[in-house]
Amino acid sequence: MLGNFAYCNPTKLYFGDEALQYLNEELPKYGKNVVLVYGGGSIKKNGIYDEVAEILKTNGKNVTEIAGVMPNPTLEKLYEGIEIARKHEADLILAVGGGSVCDYAKAVSVSVHCDEDPWEKYYLKFEEPACEIVPVGCVLTMVGTGSEMNAGAVITNQETKLKIGHVFADENIMPRFSILNPKYILTLPHYQMIAGIYDIFNHICEQYFSGEDDNTSDYISEGLMRSVIHSSRIANKDPQDYEARSNLMWTATWALNTLVAKGKPTDWMVHMLGQAVGAHTDATHGMTLSAVSLPYYRYIMPYGLTKFVRFAKNVWDIDATGKTDEQVAEEGLAAMESWMNELGLVMNITELGADEEMLEGLAESTLILDGGYKVPGRDDIVTIFRNSL
Amino acid sequence: MLGNFAYCNPTKLYFGDEALQYLNEELPKYGKNVVLVYGGGSIKKNGIYDEVAEILKTNGKNVTEIAGVMPNPTLEKLYEGIEIARKHEADLILAVGGGSVCDYAKAVSVSVHCDEDPWEKYYLKFEEPACEIVPVGCVLTMVGTGSEMNAGAVITNQETKLKIGHVFADENIMPRFSILNPKYILTLPHYQMIAGIYDIFNHICEQYFSGEDDNTSDYISEGLMRSVIHSSRIANKDPQDYEARSNLMWTATWALNTLVAKGKPTDWMVHMLGQAVGAHTDATHGMTLSAVSLPYYRYIMPYGLTKFVRFAKNVWDIDATGKTDEQVAEEGLAAMESWMNELGLVMNITELGADEEMLEGLAESTLILDGGYKVPGRDDIVTIFRNSL
Repeated sequence: MLGNFAYCNPTKLYFGDEALQYLNEELPKYGKNVVLVYGGGSIKKNGIYDEVAEILKTNGKNVTEIAGVMPNPTLEKLYEGIEIARKHEADLILAVGGGSVCDYAKAVSVSVHCDEDPWEKYYLKFEEPACEIVPVGCVLTMVGTGSEMNAGAVITNQETKLKIGHVFADENIMPRFSILNPKYILTLPHYQMIAGIYDIFNHICEQYFSGEDDNTSDYISEGLMRSVIHSSRIANKDPQDYEARSNLMWTATWALNTLVAKGKPTDWMVHMLGQAVGAHTDATHGMTLSAVSLPYYRYIMPYGLTKFVRFAKNVWDIDATGKTDEQVAEEGLAAMESWMNELGLVMNITELGADEEMLEGLAESTLILDGGYKVPGRDDIVTIFRNSL
Repeated sequence: MLGNFAYCNPTKLYFGDEALQYLNEELPKYGKNVVLVYGGGSIKKNGIYDEVAEILKTNGKNVTEIAGVMPNPTLEKLYEGIEIARKHEADLILAVGGGSVCDYAKAVSVSVHCDEDPWEKYYLKFEEPACEIVPVGCVLTMVGTGSEMNAGAVITNQETKLKIGHVFADENIMPRFSILNPKYILTLPHYQMIAGIYDIFNHICEQYFSGEDDNTSDYISEGLMRSVIHSSRIANKDPQDYEARSNLMWTATWALNTLVAKGKPTDWMVHMLGQAVGAHTDATHGMTLSAVSLPYYRYIMPYGLTKFVRFAKNVWDIDATGKTDEQVAEEGLAAMESWMNELGLVMNITELGADEEMLEGLAESTLILDGGYKVPGRDDIVTIFRNSL
């Protein structure tokens, strides 16, 4: 049921191989003090850092930096960034990187003018900011999370081994603008590319595999999934295929900007399972999802059979003639598994560094959410992790 | 090819049967002077007018009205509205109605502070406004045009028999907010309901049937088309099915808010043909489109065969085994024709009041646009209209 909801995604997206020039149109809208946020320095090697720095200089900005934002941004790093942004009296936070860098920038943006502890307020109590929010802009250099057009920000508390994502309700937390240049992602290692692709696909699954009715979000989701499958096969063979990479970049944005969640309860359990793996192993986000997905989906399939049958037919073109619903549904998941293997995704958590001894700890770190076809108990979680070994 | 583009749709949508209450959240953001725009007075019969008036009063607004906006808003009516809005020093234009009322409100919004003639500037020269734009909000009471989340505004010059739509580039022309309550459309006559449904479907077709590649927009379009077909069949049998009407309302917004046009040349010829019929007969917009669609699509099919084959398979589930591409493509259009007949759409322009003698005049009023698989010549246009009789 579509029900009652509000939708507002005001982020201005500049897409294409000429997109960076529009930074010149955006920068004059903000004050002088810019905090430039980036990760491990790959943007210095590929020249993006120099291009962005030049544009900031041309626009007369007073720039300070937060460098070294890690793939799973830590709470410690967040505290460090808040101090830098406060000291610099930031008028704009410019994130240049992938989803982690964008997430981090948003987490800083709601914390600079907040008197309370951000971990406590935003990640344990899931409260909305009551303070001024520093505007965020993004230049995307990796693809998958959709962070460039949503109000989500995942932070990892290394001490408590909790990796928590908060999707804020206030659209002012979404980036004011995001620059999406598919050329920037052509040089990513294959491993990062396919991890990002699976992240996109899983975002759609998390929203699609919930709810009993056939609403517009299900239909849009099926279109997006087919697009991802189509382009991923081209990109997997030829990562330099600009067109395929463009389409993947664009689907990533639409997979997680709230659109396909409209009218859906949504079931984020694969992310919860994957985030637990990430908190314990620091593995690449997309690979933590691919490693636990099929054991999870095979666990919930009997409770959401109708949707899994639909998935098989509409996404994987499974011919249902003369088959039981269970057979059709399983053939859909088998087709998905085959596609995942074709891409070369990590299919078990052992490969990510997990082992039998970690199972209880992983289950301990897994937030159990409702919304799915079956809310797993603690024992189910352990079993799903065991089946993921 | 996705190529280079910008995307920004900042309209805040409030969706559902409780949506109107959010007018109370939006109104305080604007100044005191509100121009309330509506059509033929049906909102007075069904109580929406009273509800809106009450909320305006509670919020202390100084309200003046532009009533009687017609289904194809005329240039004369536009001039009248501009004068009213100027005299009232409008801070907000609140449109309560369908696409025509929303379109009209936007046309007024870009003209109030414009010194030039709006017809000349916006509809003949297709220029962007250089003046201040008065904010627009919408309360939607009919479904189909997508006007609630785009920057388009169609105006008809009765003198020259030209009905021209300008889709402005500036996102500030999009409504600041739109209230989409599916309950408001449950009482629409069946004729209006199905005309709106075809308008939605055709908007998607106009964008889908262009371009040679398989990009994300094609996949999203197919999802939206399948959703429209699914819900239209339910609504056609039971117009009171809130859920089906909700999904139709939501697809209408996404069919024409620029999303599925990304990376597409787009081909608006069915709208050009339909708008010519509308300018000569004042027929309902959606019915002018349904009446000319199949003759047009059968005309361009040989030039865009690959896409018509894809349409047949992905939208209508046509089994292609052992058939030529031409057969598959024609079966897709036949399935579409059968669905149109099932809904009870107008399938020829004769029923709308056109005849053999009008053909030349209709062709004269048809703007020929490129972007499609084949740009028709003047003679082709006459033939398409003749095949639509």
